[in-house]
Amino acid sequence: MGTERELIARIARRVRGGSGVVLGIGDDAALLEAPAGWLVATCDALLAGRHFAPEDDPADVGWKALAVNLSDLAAMGARPRHALLALNLPEADVEWLERFLDGFLAIAHEHGVALVGGNLARGDLSITVTLLGEVAAGRALRRDGGRAGDRLWVTGALGAAAAALASLRRGERPPPDWRARLDRPVPRVSAGLALAGVAHAAIDLSDGLLADLDRLCTASGTGAEIDLSALPFAPGLEALGDDDRLAFALGGGEDYELLLALPPGLDPRSQLADQIPITAIGTLTAEPGIRLRDPRGALRPVGAMGFDHFAGAGDA
Amino acid sequence: MGTERELIARIARRVRGGSGVVLGIGDDAALLEAPAGWLVATCDALLAGRHFAPEDDPADVGWKALAVNLSDLAAMGARPRHALLALNLPEADVEWLERFLDGFLAIAHEHGVALVGGNLARGDLSITVTLLGEVAAGRALRRDGGRAGDRLWVTGALGAAAAALASLRRGERPPPDWRARLDRPVPRVSAGLALAGVAHAAIDLSDGLLADLDRLCTASGTGAEIDLSALPFAPGLEALGDDDRLAFALGGGEDYELLLALPPGLDPRSQLADQIPITAIGTLTAEPGIRLRDPRGALRPVGAMGFDHFAGAGDA
Repeated sequence: MGTERELIARIARRVRGGSGVVLGIGDDAALLEAPAGWLVATCDALLAGRHFAPEDDPADVGWKALAVNLSDLAAMGARPRHALLALNLPEADVEWLERFLDGFLAIAHEHGVALVGGNLARGDLSITVTLLGEVAAGRALRRDGGRAGDRLWVTGALGAAAAALASLRRGERPPPDWRARLDRPVPRVSAGLALAGVAHAAIDLSDGLLADLDRLCTASGTGAEIDLSALPFAPGLEALGDDDRLAFALGGGEDYELLLALPPGLDPRSQLADQIPITAIGTLTAEPGIRLRDPRGALRPVGAMGFDHFAGAGDA
Repeated sequence: MGTERELIARIARRVRGGSGVVLGIGDDAALLEAPAGWLVATCDALLAGRHFAPEDDPADVGWKALAVNLSDLAAMGARPRHALLALNLPEADVEWLERFLDGFLAIAHEHGVALVGGNLARGDLSITVTLLGEVAAGRALRRDGGRAGDRLWVTGALGAAAAALASLRRGERPPPDWRARLDRPVPRVSAGLALAGVAHAAIDLSDGLLADLDRLCTASGTGAEIDLSALPFAPGLEALGDDDRLAFALGGGEDYELLLALPPGLDPRSQLADQIPITAIGTLTAEPGIRLRDPRGALRPVGAMGFDHFAGAGDA
């Protein structure tokens, strides 16, 4: 449709070239300089009514659509380079598109990512982003490299996005810093890059610490112990009851922090030049299953704590 | 959701490794060996109710979802390598998914494409495929390399998919070979590979010859003359009236043949080892605009032939 061509022209006008781009938007496919080392590729979608509300600020939606993909590349220790954007839009809404691009291109610029292609179609509002990056051969962070005895570390703080979502669902207005964590997650790209080739394993926290730890453990063939008194709760969560705070931090999801398994004795704080907080929260174990050490020192399986229903939650 | 994880496990079970795949489905991102030369990337979506009917055979939908992307890489002269598949499904329908994979993996196998990642979410049925490939640096076929005097060639035959669609819309049952062209288009990957570095310009015919020729001409800064008596009509179209036949071949779309601009004097039939038919249909001109030479030898602008409303039709 004419209007769809017009929208594509608008996108193309706001996107000019980029590092490693031989030919961007406008031909049958993009031509890109080959990555150094391995090519890293991921794809994530946000659907209206499921991952965001149709009335959300399109700039936040644009930010988040790329942020969740950047978080996946961060978890591989990869440097992001090029993105393809597939938009299904119910109507040719120029204002929505321009606001969406404000957020999408802002975080793209922050991470040196060039938008090089995509697709536009009329349909129920959803956004699918494919993100391409690079990592030195053999230095990628995978889920399956963890070993019993590795220390578990987590970047940043946990629970703010889930706390914000819970507030919204109760019809309340969450504190701005919680809301910002939900709407504009900050992918830990530089932490992933700094720890590529150093950490034994990594995963990003999209579905909650327990669910994502369970995936890392399953892939690595280990179990894990988490020290609840060590968890880095997001600011403001201390005002909540113990149960809510733990539920948000362990099961809430959408933190987009990195969970890393590091060789014992290696302190990653010296590797992280840019002031990213990182906290040791537990250990990988030969014994399978996840156990939680409560503040009184007692060790209990996740199920006994009432958190087993979190494992495996969340999107694919 | 558990069921979505189960669907992903089903996909992963049917996809094992592939050429150049270091790590496929199952981590935060895929790890792939770097392409030789340039990396080529494209992304295309099929939406239920718009690009296919919800009741269509899922195997055909799976085939076509990859075929349209393969056609884009063919138009760049690229060798396809790896695909990412983002599926929005209204429900966790295992039978639909397995049939979809039958078609998707059949054409993937034909072209040596490995499925290495993607996304699964609950939503209105749509399929977004990102396809990655490679082409020797400097040998890619672009839209913008055509020059006045180049001969225009088209692979295969035109109009069958559009004729099938018109039959269906009238509530009739189209002949099986027309229907097959609509449901299972055959991307001209080997023709693109054979003519990479040889043709001056290329585009695939997704929106109809006139619309796509218009794009090639605009990008190349040329016009074009098309000889109507030279057009390779699909078998069976000779039974139609002149107007329908021309409308399907010039404006119908979904042919997924390649339109190529070749240096005058170069006959591509010697390059195409695998029996792909290719026909000279016209010439690029310094004078802008598209003119059609009718069977009596008269040359008229597209507008005067009543075909101007086709230009620019179709999806983004």
